[in-house]
Amino acid sequence: RINGDRLWDSLMEMAKIGPGIAGGNNRQTLTDEDAAGRALFQRWCEDAGMTMGVDKMGSMFFRREGTDPDALPVYVGSHLDTQPTGGKYDGILGVLGGLEVVRTLNDLGIKTRRPIVVVNWTNEEGTRFAPPMVASGVFAGVHELDWAYAIKDAAGKTMGDELKRIGWLGDEEVGARKMHAMFELHIEQGPILEAEGKDIGVVTHGQGLKWIQITLTGKESHTGSTPMPMRVNAGLGMARITQLVDEIAWSNQPKAVGAIGHVEVYPNSRNIIPGRTVFTVDFRSPDKAILDDMDARLREGAKKIAAEIGLGIEIEQIGHFDPVTFDEKCVTTVRNAAERLGYSHQNIISGAGHDACWINRVAPTAMIMCPCVDGLSHNEAEEISPEWAKAGADVLFHAVVETAEI
Amino acid sequence: RINGDRLWDSLMEMAKIGPGIAGGNNRQTLTDEDAAGRALFQRWCEDAGMTMGVDKMGSMFFRREGTDPDALPVYVGSHLDTQPTGGKYDGILGVLGGLEVVRTLNDLGIKTRRPIVVVNWTNEEGTRFAPPMVASGVFAGVHELDWAYAIKDAAGKTMGDELKRIGWLGDEEVGARKMHAMFELHIEQGPILEAEGKDIGVVTHGQGLKWIQITLTGKESHTGSTPMPMRVNAGLGMARITQLVDEIAWSNQPKAVGAIGHVEVYPNSRNIIPGRTVFTVDFRSPDKAILDDMDARLREGAKKIAAEIGLGIEIEQIGHFDPVTFDEKCVTTVRNAAERLGYSHQNIISGAGHDACWINRVAPTAMIMCPCVDGLSHNEAEEISPEWAKAGADVLFHAVVETAEI
Ligand SMILES: NC(=O)NCCC(=O)O
Ligand SMILES: NC(=O)NCCC(=O)O
Repeated sequence: RINGDRLWDSLMEMAKIGPGIAGGNNRQTLTDEDAAGRALFQRWCEDAGMTMGVDKMGSMFFRREGTDPDALPVYVGSHLDTQPTGGKYDGILGVLGGLEVVRTLNDLGIKTRRPIVVVNWTNEEGTRFAPPMVASGVFAGVHELDWAYAIKDAAGKTMGDELKRIGWLGDEEVGARKMHAMFELHIEQGPILEAEGKDIGVVTHGQGLKWIQITLTGKESHTGSTPMPMRVNAGLGMARITQLVDEIAWSNQPKAVGAIGHVEVYPNSRNIIPGRTVFTVDFRSPDKAILDDMDARLREGAKKIAAEIGLGIEIEQIGHFDPVTFDEKCVTTVRNAAERLGYSHQNIISGAGHDACWINRVAPTAMIMCPCVDGLSHNEAEEISPEWAKAGADVLFHAVVETAEI
Repeated sequence: RINGDRLWDSLMEMAKIGPGIAGGNNRQTLTDEDAAGRALFQRWCEDAGMTMGVDKMGSMFFRREGTDPDALPVYVGSHLDTQPTGGKYDGILGVLGGLEVVRTLNDLGIKTRRPIVVVNWTNEEGTRFAPPMVASGVFAGVHELDWAYAIKDAAGKTMGDELKRIGWLGDEEVGARKMHAMFELHIEQGPILEAEGKDIGVVTHGQGLKWIQITLTGKESHTGSTPMPMRVNAGLGMARITQLVDEIAWSNQPKAVGAIGHVEVYPNSRNIIPGRTVFTVDFRSPDKAILDDMDARLREGAKKIAAEIGLGIEIEQIGHFDPVTFDEKCVTTVRNAAERLGYSHQNIISGAGHDACWINRVAPTAMIMCPCVDGLSHNEAEEISPEWAKAGADVLFHAVVETAEI
């Protein structure tokens, strides 16, 4: 079993970097805070005897040698970047859980046959630079490197320039590494495990996602002196599409969710009718047919709303992944580990996207989930108990060590 | 008659200060651009032989002496500040029209019995610091000076500090000046005069306004892994209230307008359900009973929507003025001037708020309107013709000179 206190201490230590305003973290990708978090993680990994590789997307790989020089390594990890108002565990638990696996092997003096590589994937969150899971996506061959470099944040800075600026542009070709398998431990970010009183979620599938950005163009004009019949209000169009998104998601219960989290209103002045709005719809479903159908209904409905108000409309898909089925053998390994350790568990579908969802395309992959309080995530108040963290890391340890072979 | 070319040249010259991004202006109140515009205006007024006074709200008063040392002056003016994406005429025409009145009197060598004072009121627009018409409101005794000083912009800077910073905090007590009358020339900012083919709007009334700021508090959480029944989406509440505002305004046609121009969404991340939204409803009507009824229906409806979604709600009135009836004698003077000059004219109700609306409480006041293309204002594409500007300034000249007596 792993050392739960050490794991918890490391989580708390990492949370000191890029503190939020309400107890959580703001350590967004490729900021100075991200760089500071990376440096701390590097120090810890090197102290644990691992050697670092960094790829051209800035993803960090720390290798613990195995006894068989020809064996492909087992990968374990997640991401250290956070939402602007994020929690202390989303991503971090999976990375530091991987480090704890190695520290425990060191404590026990165990050498595995296969090397073990602990990884921190760059820009999982996708908030500063959309879409999410960019570096693992490039690694898995679903995105081009140059495309990723060109992604801009709201201030117009590119991922490529920011990688260079913070000093984490590595030289390894992205995706050149071959994996025997990968395991990712993550908090559920939803309410199911806590409600069911289960220690461990054995993640069999992941929901698919579509991020659809809509731009509505109306006519900026005076809120006081423009008669109602002459208005072309882009804010009103956004409001009606916001409700449409909600209706579409509700009509597919319990197999879909949908909301608009990102909104820009121009020029955003109290006495100007919005002339332009830009916003992103987030649709998810574990069922590809439902996801496609929601997309189609949104496009049709949004165009109708725009036409009724007289708005121009542009619709662009800015993020997408299909539902995922994780590797059967890896999933079984996770389930058996939970069983063997005596932790209560159940199968679960991941509501969120994860690096594991992309890596599953190029290597056998599975995920382990632990509960989080109230199902709350992407919130500074995100919370887990040390016991939950320990249980997750114990299962991770067993799954990784069994797959890496002693 | 005034010199239309000179007036137009001055308008174009002022428009060079704080250029927008689409041909208009961004010369928001108490910015460096505002300071530069004020300095240019000061130079022009002093060149025209006037002497300056500045009050504790930064409003600028330029005095041309009359022949009777005991006579109260006739005031003429408007505002030089603009919206963030504003036009070249909204406000500016009234200030530079006042300057043109004096320049024309100088050309003609005419001395009036009463002094004439050309005024630039601080922060008419109310965008950077809400509400609008702040300095004229303090002048008219509807706001306290200290309250005005404490108004904050989005960056947390106060009006008081910014007045000091740009060097336009004067020493005159606000409202100490006594006026015989005030005239304000302004573009209509609506489509009526152009549609009716009229040169001049004789403004008999002004619409009343309510700015109602609503804060909805939900629960920030993950857009992917939070099941629909567990969501408390503050963005959805804002969307429904946006539609309610539209419905309430439509139900009072043609005697009301309403929209939401200002919106903040927290934390504004694509994969976070909005945990908080703040937005401002702008309701207007020339009929106080309708305005009050719209306010009541909004409060009731918004509370109901919040309760249905499970959102916390705070409702705060952050701007307000009652419908205005301008001074009968001043209005008649304007109408007679238009008639005498041979300009087509009609009575009109101002859709927007103006400094004249507040000053009307402390001195006999009237407004003159000229058409603007497509009724467009609070838009960088705001446009008027030199002929419209000249007609408005001609009428202003006659009304001011008649009231100041030769
Ligand atoms: N786990 C997580 O929050 N990933 C970000 C991508 C997503 O929104 O699902
Ligand atoms: N004239 C003008 O646009 N004033 C600003 C206040 C308002 O919104 O009516």
